[in-house]
Amino acid sequence: MTTATRTAYDELKALLRESATLGSVGSLLNWDQETQMPPKGGDFRGEQASLIARLAHERLTDQRVGELLGACESDSELLADQQTAASLREIRRDYDIATKLPSSLVTEMSQTFCGGVEAWRVARGNNDFNAMKPWYKKVVELNRRKAECLGAPAGGELYDALLDEYEPGMTSAQIEVIFKPLRERLTPLITAIGASGVKPDESINKVNAPLPDQIRFVELVAKAVGYDFGAGRLDVSTHPFSETIGIGDSRITSRFSDANVADPVATTLHEAGHGMYEQGLPRDKHFGTPLAEACSLGIHESQSRMWENQVGRSKPFWTWLLPQLKKTLGSDFDGFTADQAYACVNAARPHFIRVESDESTYNLHIMLRFDIERALIRGDLSVDDLPGAWNERMKSDLGLTVKEDRDGVLQDIHWPMGAIGYFPTYTLGNLYAAQFWDTINGVFPDLDAQMERGEFAPLLTWLRENIHAHGRRYSAPDLCQRITGKPLSHEPLCNYLEAKFKPLYNL
Amino acid sequence: MTTATRTAYDELKALLRESATLGSVGSLLNWDQETQMPPKGGDFRGEQASLIARLAHERLTDQRVGELLGACESDSELLADQQTAASLREIRRDYDIATKLPSSLVTEMSQTFCGGVEAWRVARGNNDFNAMKPWYKKVVELNRRKAECLGAPAGGELYDALLDEYEPGMTSAQIEVIFKPLRERLTPLITAIGASGVKPDESINKVNAPLPDQIRFVELVAKAVGYDFGAGRLDVSTHPFSETIGIGDSRITSRFSDANVADPVATTLHEAGHGMYEQGLPRDKHFGTPLAEACSLGIHESQSRMWENQVGRSKPFWTWLLPQLKKTLGSDFDGFTADQAYACVNAARPHFIRVESDESTYNLHIMLRFDIERALIRGDLSVDDLPGAWNERMKSDLGLTVKEDRDGVLQDIHWPMGAIGYFPTYTLGNLYAAQFWDTINGVFPDLDAQMERGEFAPLLTWLRENIHAHGRRYSAPDLCQRITGKPLSHEPLCNYLEAKFKPLYNL
Repeated sequence: MTTATRTAYDELKALLRESATLGSVGSLLNWDQETQMPPKGGDFRGEQASLIARLAHERLTDQRVGELLGACESDSELLADQQTAASLREIRRDYDIATKLPSSLVTEMSQTFCGGVEAWRVARGNNDFNAMKPWYKKVVELNRRKAECLGAPAGGELYDALLDEYEPGMTSAQIEVIFKPLRERLTPLITAIGASGVKPDESINKVNAPLPDQIRFVELVAKAVGYDFGAGRLDVSTHPFSETIGIGDSRITSRFSDANVADPVATTLHEAGHGMYEQGLPRDKHFGTPLAEACSLGIHESQSRMWENQVGRSKPFWTWLLPQLKKTLGSDFDGFTADQAYACVNAARPHFIRVESDESTYNLHIMLRFDIERALIRGDLSVDDLPGAWNERMKSDLGLTVKEDRDGVLQDIHWPMGAIGYFPTYTLGNLYAAQFWDTINGVFPDLDAQMERGEFAPLLTWLRENIHAHGRRYSAPDLCQRITGKPLSHEPLCNYLEAKFKPLYNL
Repeated sequence: MTTATRTAYDELKALLRESATLGSVGSLLNWDQETQMPPKGGDFRGEQASLIARLAHERLTDQRVGELLGACESDSELLADQQTAASLREIRRDYDIATKLPSSLVTEMSQTFCGGVEAWRVARGNNDFNAMKPWYKKVVELNRRKAECLGAPAGGELYDALLDEYEPGMTSAQIEVIFKPLRERLTPLITAIGASGVKPDESINKVNAPLPDQIRFVELVAKAVGYDFGAGRLDVSTHPFSETIGIGDSRITSRFSDANVADPVATTLHEAGHGMYEQGLPRDKHFGTPLAEACSLGIHESQSRMWENQVGRSKPFWTWLLPQLKKTLGSDFDGFTADQAYACVNAARPHFIRVESDESTYNLHIMLRFDIERALIRGDLSVDDLPGAWNERMKSDLGLTVKEDRDGVLQDIHWPMGAIGYFPTYTLGNLYAAQFWDTINGVFPDLDAQMERGEFAPLLTWLRENIHAHGRRYSAPDLCQRITGKPLSHEPLCNYLEAKFKPLYNL
């Protein structure tokens, strides 16, 4: 490595670190807005956030970044280090995406999507699809323009350019290859569950518990699985999320109601899963470079879903958890067994709302959105026909008749906020989680026994070493191949769901 | 006003608004650090804060600001509007101060003072003055260099340049003229209180109350006096403070212990006083310009001290408060009378610690610091002799023998954080509060009766209109003259303290 190039790479990293630091400040503005900010602070918060976003974007797209990157890329000694080579590959990716989008389009998108979210909050409340029509049309149009700027991959379609932002390297054709057999095995399972006549006892979710005790309890759960409260915190918010504020500071939120302790436990495990991934990224060493960033949204979701489902909806987990629950939340829970709790947290039935769906039906919601948003970008479906297309699919896929658009096409924030190509990453997360889980069970044959004892450190350490520590060094498909020895497939998830639901529903 | 100048003034305001917006983001970073941030986030928080501070400073000192300011200042039509003229006068002041300091000095100060605070936390814990010596020497040296860059006012001394940053337009000679007679009237009063033999019943401060109830109670108090929780919030922190995060968002904190409800009430009123001033500044209209900013630290402190003392340590206030306290905090408080509470919250005795001092002795602490820091800057006192000088004054002024430096020269964060010239603003705040209070009592002859009924809106409205709404339009001395018809004097404060303490201590 020549001295000049080392200097170029160091200068490049310093510029990117400044951009990332501004990004982290933007994260604090967002976290604070969702959890702490008083209502009258809202208008100005948008001004703060857009200034910080602009400054971060200016640094990332600085011509100097391009020059330095070019200098680094032409230095064979620098590229000989595989980690550095991976870092430069991903910096190039980010730089190209950021510079391909004209700043006028970025501004127009940010303003439109901001307005779209505000309009959606009102429209959903009023169950008024017509009010959202102009916004959805704008979202489709802007996303098409964005995709044209980014360019579809060779042989791919426009939609792939959007998908690529959230799940680098994945195409809609590849997704189709996995989603098709997934659907073919899920549909008969869901039908059989519906026909089984088994009704799990859900009375444990009817027991009331005071909010402060529930919070204390889920904090205990998050801590037990390995979420580090020294580098994070848990707050209450309507829509749970995780947000990294900077090095050593990855926060999560959860939501609560009077009864139903299963939901806060699942939500907290989900967000703690995201949070532990964030806490495991090597920011201390690589902050500002892709090596300190999450691999993809699908891999991120694999971490949240694994802790929520493979761990948090397992019988060994509830065998360990139930005594803790009784100790913290009181004698009203004394009568329940781990079997009851396990059946309750896995109660399966088709639901209008994606985020309230069980593991068996959840992925059908994603496929519905994937097909619809792809058709919108292709121009095969117009926004005018959106509710009709949605409701038809809900009927054919899940047997549900949508009565109100707020329980249908208006339910999710993703489209109003301009995110097209995002939804598939949820099912990719479920698929990665199941495939990783198979590998992990091979590594730890006594995993169930560990969970029954409340020992989660070996699992977390494995995830840290095999997934978290790599940041974006490997693409998601490469990481999957590296860890599991195979490309991503529908089979592990299907096997996992059948193995869980067949005994629960006497199939 | 020519079109070109309007454009210049608009462009100037836009640049300053960006700088102020960055400043407000810095405020969020600070507030979050003190109230929410997990411990492992601390190291990186410094990097976030210094980046934001640098970007804000770059904008304020941009050459373009100087050009635009010059253009505005030479436009007689623009200056014909008195509000605009005042705004330009204060922008000039800020610009000159910011550009007079070389950025190398700014960086050195910020790094040294940051290190000074860290060192102080350890040194105070260890009661180790020697560990602080090199830091204090550096603080004195850097402040001298800073003062030399800023320049002393004509006929003034170096120290005045430092004082001017916190209390614009005030000189140490002017302060001396007020502090001298203040001391001459306070000293016999304090001596008489000590000799009186009266010991107020302080048992109300021995009653325990659960923390959540105490928080609920002080929130009720803050709301009752007019602090707007729609544009703010109250959190718990070790060192109470108020911080404005942006337009419509001025937050406060308070501190609590198991017993002693008087302290959280006083602390909350103090911070709510700061917070209500911040909420009353016309940010909606003028954010980014001095018209939306606080007049001076002395005026700021006048607002906090008025609500804490003139209101919150008055008998009418406790006549209103005690029933609320009994209702919220329970029957353990049933036996107490308003007279007892009033005597308790005004219990007077010399104390080693400034922030725990009563109204009669508090200002002697400030005079001690004023004289010492002025001597340090003059070179009349060396850091080596600092504890000796401190302890001698504590003995002669308050009759106290300092045994440990942590109760003496190490007690305050101000010097470690490099703030020299700040302390006098505390007593200036007390003086302004008392002088304003006389005027207000003239306006509202039934002020006591209003307070007994828990009616604080007329008082707050008056403060809004006569003080808060003006921002930095008038200097503190001008504002005082405008409101009270007189320059600042020791007399209102002395009269107020004698009128309070003589009956309480049978003098």
